[in-house]
Amino acid sequence: MINSDRRLVEQQMKIALIGAGRVATNLAKAFVARDMPIVEVWSRTRASAEALVGQLHELSPQGQCTCKAVWGRVEDVCTDADLYIIAVKDDALATVAQALHPGRESALIVHTAGSMSMSVITDTGHERSGVFYPMQTFSKEREVDFSCVHFFVEAVAPADETLLSEMAFSLTQNEDFVHHSTAALRRRLHLAAVFACNFLNHCCTLSAEILKEDGLDFSVMLPLVDETVAKLHQLPPREAQTGPAIRHDDKVTGLQQAMLAHHPELQKIYTLLTNSIQRYD
Amino acid sequence: MINSDRRLVEQQMKIALIGAGRVATNLAKAFVARDMPIVEVWSRTRASAEALVGQLHELSPQGQCTCKAVWGRVEDVCTDADLYIIAVKDDALATVAQALHPGRESALIVHTAGSMSMSVITDTGHERSGVFYPMQTFSKEREVDFSCVHFFVEAVAPADETLLSEMAFSLTQNEDFVHHSTAALRRRLHLAAVFACNFLNHCCTLSAEILKEDGLDFSVMLPLVDETVAKLHQLPPREAQTGPAIRHDDKVTGLQQAMLAHHPELQKIYTLLTNSIQRYD
Repeated sequence: MINSDRRLVEQQMKIALIGAGRVATNLAKAFVARDMPIVEVWSRTRASAEALVGQLHELSPQGQCTCKAVWGRVEDVCTDADLYIIAVKDDALATVAQALHPGRESALIVHTAGSMSMSVITDTGHERSGVFYPMQTFSKEREVDFSCVHFFVEAVAPADETLLSEMAFSLTQNEDFVHHSTAALRRRLHLAAVFACNFLNHCCTLSAEILKEDGLDFSVMLPLVDETVAKLHQLPPREAQTGPAIRHDDKVTGLQQAMLAHHPELQKIYTLLTNSIQRYD
Repeated sequence: MINSDRRLVEQQMKIALIGAGRVATNLAKAFVARDMPIVEVWSRTRASAEALVGQLHELSPQGQCTCKAVWGRVEDVCTDADLYIIAVKDDALATVAQALHPGRESALIVHTAGSMSMSVITDTGHERSGVFYPMQTFSKEREVDFSCVHFFVEAVAPADETLLSEMAFSLTQNEDFVHHSTAALRRRLHLAAVFACNFLNHCCTLSAEILKEDGLDFSVMLPLVDETVAKLHQLPPREAQTGPAIRHDDKVTGLQQAMLAHHPELQKIYTLLTNSIQRYD
């Protein structure tokens, strides 16, 4: 990547952020921390737009960040930004893109969703469309370390795809974490991510439910969870498996199944996952 | 804990380890690293008994560890140890305990299994019985850091329970990680651990299966897994949940379900876990 390109990304391109949720919040903070100019943040409600803009101003005490809050109608967002990043709920994406297109025909408009096609933007008639998908779990409570986030980018125009790749690189500083991706691949990545993140987390929720009945807090399981995940950095998950299911210890799996008799839903999950583990033996 | 007690545990008590698998290997190494005298390691096969003993001797280059390898009949294990720790497969436990009892009536005999009752030892007629359960996932490839392992101990005699607690404390150096536990509680902990460890790991196996179809390695998911688990150190798992299921994003969950049409087993797991996440909303 040559320096002039990076300067373009980092200093000159005016970015408007459409959304003030988890993804938008984490992206906006990362952009401001790297002196990339966010000119506006839009949210449906005044409170959330102003809350995020307040956080961004705090991040730049010398006042470099002149970002404004906009709320209500998407049409009221400035028309002179170079890049519009739509980070709203999947089912609001089409409507927001539709409202954004008129008057901003020459700008690049992208969304950040894993399972949505780029066509949600091109369908509005917009030419310079793209996708900028950071594959990570975002929460308002934690600041995501973008140096560990894989980005999957896509754009109609090759030049725009380069620009999005450079922007991703500005955030991760790691070329191995910047990927081109079609909608089909991104959808499959998102599906795999649901298993590795949401379902993984839910196994912990169910574990916490079991412990709750004995008045125990889930924190007692954290060393076990940490070690399980540490192992995944050394071994493929299939080889890392331990426990009664993979040992085909029918006595213990039978006992554990019986212990869940009063929780038919948990019991069903237990049986299904136990059988599935044994199928990958 | 008074010093004289700890000296008793750390220097004088002769320990025989029955088993040379994952739990036995990790425990034995930790004992030797703390100068606790392992006098014998027994395994069914000569190769595995000698392999573990070889590792232990390597850990004590000044020859403090005089541990011997024994194999074949459990009856051939020395009769003069103070503590016998049985770390074998659950379904071999009863037979091993039965063979061990005669001639070792005055010793403390314990097992390390989460889901087995202490009665598997008391049923042999042995008086000084106990359980020493380290709640962790053990592999031969990784050395477990015992300072992060919760121990659940139980014994017929209160003095033996104290002794096992002290032994656990010697390994963890953290009183918050040493717990008394009945068989019933231990069984429930083990069940909760299956969800938080084995099922969690299996979600990653399934994620890896999905990625494999696109020629992608599971390592692409590791930053996501790490962040998901880092979040669990801050929030209860139920509150930490993200993704299409908890957002009730039926369009995406419907799409992802359809994507698994050629994997009926994965599809079943997807549906069950998605519904379960929504039930805990």
